[in-house]
Amino acid sequence: MWMPERDMRDRLRSLFGGKVFLVGAGPGEWSLLTLRGAMLISAAEVVVYDHLLDTRILDLAPDDAELIYAGKRAGKHALAQDEINELLVNRARAGRMVVRLKGGDPWIFGRGAEEAEFLSTNDVPFEIVPGVSALSAVPAAAGIPLTHRRFASAFAAATGHEDPSKPQRQLDYSILSTVPGSLVVFMGVRNLAHIIDELMAGGRDGEEPAALVRQGYTAHQETIEAPLRSLAETAKSKGIAPPAIFISSPAVGLRKRLMWFEKRPLWRKRVVITRPRKQAAELATLLELLGADAILSPSIAVEPLDDYGDVDREIRALQNYDLLVFTSVNGVEHFMGRVFELGYDSRLLANAEVAAIGKATAEALRRFGIVCEHIPR
Amino acid sequence: MWMPERDMRDRLRSLFGGKVFLVGAGPGEWSLLTLRGAMLISAAEVVVYDHLLDTRILDLAPDDAELIYAGKRAGKHALAQDEINELLVNRARAGRMVVRLKGGDPWIFGRGAEEAEFLSTNDVPFEIVPGVSALSAVPAAAGIPLTHRRFASAFAAATGHEDPSKPQRQLDYSILSTVPGSLVVFMGVRNLAHIIDELMAGGRDGEEPAALVRQGYTAHQETIEAPLRSLAETAKSKGIAPPAIFISSPAVGLRKRLMWFEKRPLWRKRVVITRPRKQAAELATLLELLGADAILSPSIAVEPLDDYGDVDREIRALQNYDLLVFTSVNGVEHFMGRVFELGYDSRLLANAEVAAIGKATAEALRRFGIVCEHIPR
Repeated sequence: MWMPERDMRDRLRSLFGGKVFLVGAGPGEWSLLTLRGAMLISAAEVVVYDHLLDTRILDLAPDDAELIYAGKRAGKHALAQDEINELLVNRARAGRMVVRLKGGDPWIFGRGAEEAEFLSTNDVPFEIVPGVSALSAVPAAAGIPLTHRRFASAFAAATGHEDPSKPQRQLDYSILSTVPGSLVVFMGVRNLAHIIDELMAGGRDGEEPAALVRQGYTAHQETIEAPLRSLAETAKSKGIAPPAIFISSPAVGLRKRLMWFEKRPLWRKRVVITRPRKQAAELATLLELLGADAILSPSIAVEPLDDYGDVDREIRALQNYDLLVFTSVNGVEHFMGRVFELGYDSRLLANAEVAAIGKATAEALRRFGIVCEHIPR
Repeated sequence: MWMPERDMRDRLRSLFGGKVFLVGAGPGEWSLLTLRGAMLISAAEVVVYDHLLDTRILDLAPDDAELIYAGKRAGKHALAQDEINELLVNRARAGRMVVRLKGGDPWIFGRGAEEAEFLSTNDVPFEIVPGVSALSAVPAAAGIPLTHRRFASAFAAATGHEDPSKPQRQLDYSILSTVPGSLVVFMGVRNLAHIIDELMAGGRDGEEPAALVRQGYTAHQETIEAPLRSLAETAKSKGIAPPAIFISSPAVGLRKRLMWFEKRPLWRKRVVITRPRKQAAELATLLELLGADAILSPSIAVEPLDDYGDVDREIRALQNYDLLVFTSVNGVEHFMGRVFELGYDSRLLANAEVAAIGKATAEALRRFGIVCEHIPR
């Protein structure tokens, strides 16, 4: 696995300055981002991002990157589409390496193609980095196959999000009703009853099993199932809030057997991690893999000292020590960081024995080439 | 970015022994794998994989993992579906952490749901890790939007791969012809003429722009465009071999403006990298991001010595040296590896000055906590 070190980051920036990468952020969960997306974000000079279900994706960006929120929340856009378009062109023309981060996949709904068109018209080079779309991730998390040899040999997808400025462009859903397999509609909560009416008017069987999935593949996933004809009513009675994904498919019935997301051992357990943000990632990942909702709430901040006078004096006198005891990973990293800053390196510790409290601290020392003599229990 | 160290790998294995992860490998290019997929592969004890366009994904698996090829090449399956099913169940029951790696997305064609059903029936716990499907990646690489407010408000996808055992189940493509937007058919080369006939019989406009894309988002990408009615003939005359993705959409016409894949600076350049495989990854990635076809052809292998007697003697006498010169990253890693194996660490180099030939060598020393005194040009 290769992730860019500082050196490579500078190389990527010099190769890709003036270019816009339209990157799919995936359906929510940070770990469904692609390696390519992660690589580009971790080198980007500018990141223009939509509303993301998991903002930890932004933690990948370098500290000096300009992060610009362009998303939509509760119906209100932070930036109009024109403003986003202009922003991308201006930053690229200024020679920046720009990542335009879009929820899901930039090529499946969400106007990625329109942004690409604008860039093309303005002679700004761009690339598309596909992402995992909710189209596949959400049915997967809900245990509902999109395709299946016995149940669904094809599928169709549409958006149920009405563009308020263009009522006449409203999609006629009855046209989709004959597709021999699964139908998936993005964001179809407010219009659900209308969409279902049109599907049934087009000939879709009202008894077909259907489902509505909210925040799929996240710790907040909710799924309701009902026959197509009564799904809208069930959704209303259960108070399912938008956005959600609507699925009507003979394969919805398999959910009973293929459900896995809710069966994970820590499902619906909330765990608050108080560690500093950077060090919480590993634990959070493990908890999330087990189904928990890991909430990063750092209650400790590790900051540099205002005055390193005392520390520097002791570092310069390190040869006089017989034993150095490190009590934490932070201790190791900050102490060694200062050793390096003063122009020394691990060889400065040659005259002392080294002890670490705990395996993680010992592991941190090892990353500086030091295998400690003592790890007390 | 977090990727599991050995310590964490063992933890994942103990948590997920007996579980099967159905992981989408993405459409070809290794870098379109998800972070979650990479994380799980890098801890897996067993990886059962289909035919992958980019086998570098398997390099992520640990050295001790059992890699089992189950894929299909030239119409022949290495393992029958029953055998794959049994294999997954047996390995999981033996307590192994199993990754079932499928091209694209396990939930979009490709029988992922059938494997999940079999696991469920046999009480083997499983999880689905979605992947980027060719459905979005291939049109993206070809510059053909799947959806677009002016051209395509929905899309439908089907497979044109005939199941030879079930001719009566052949999909009637005319049913898809009315979908108001893009049609995507996977693997529709041999049946292309038949599929197009049915689409036109169902009312699809023969003048609609259509395209056939082979090996999209890889260095071997090929795209042909023609009006729907003549695409099959054009494909035949250009000799496009299966598998490919067929797209019929009003948005195909945007390709002229949205084409980007073929415009990258090193497109269609083949570059052979002779470095040892492990060290080629960074350079290969850079070249690929620029559009080149990086071919890993390691002509150097770095092996441990049969007899470390001489080296060990010098390591034990290291205090007598005034200057140590490292000439390569391999030199640093193998020398320091041996220092550690003998129970010493970087502090053993305290009496000598250290020189490195080249920045990469100096960087390798830094990973052992040593900042070298000399980097000659």
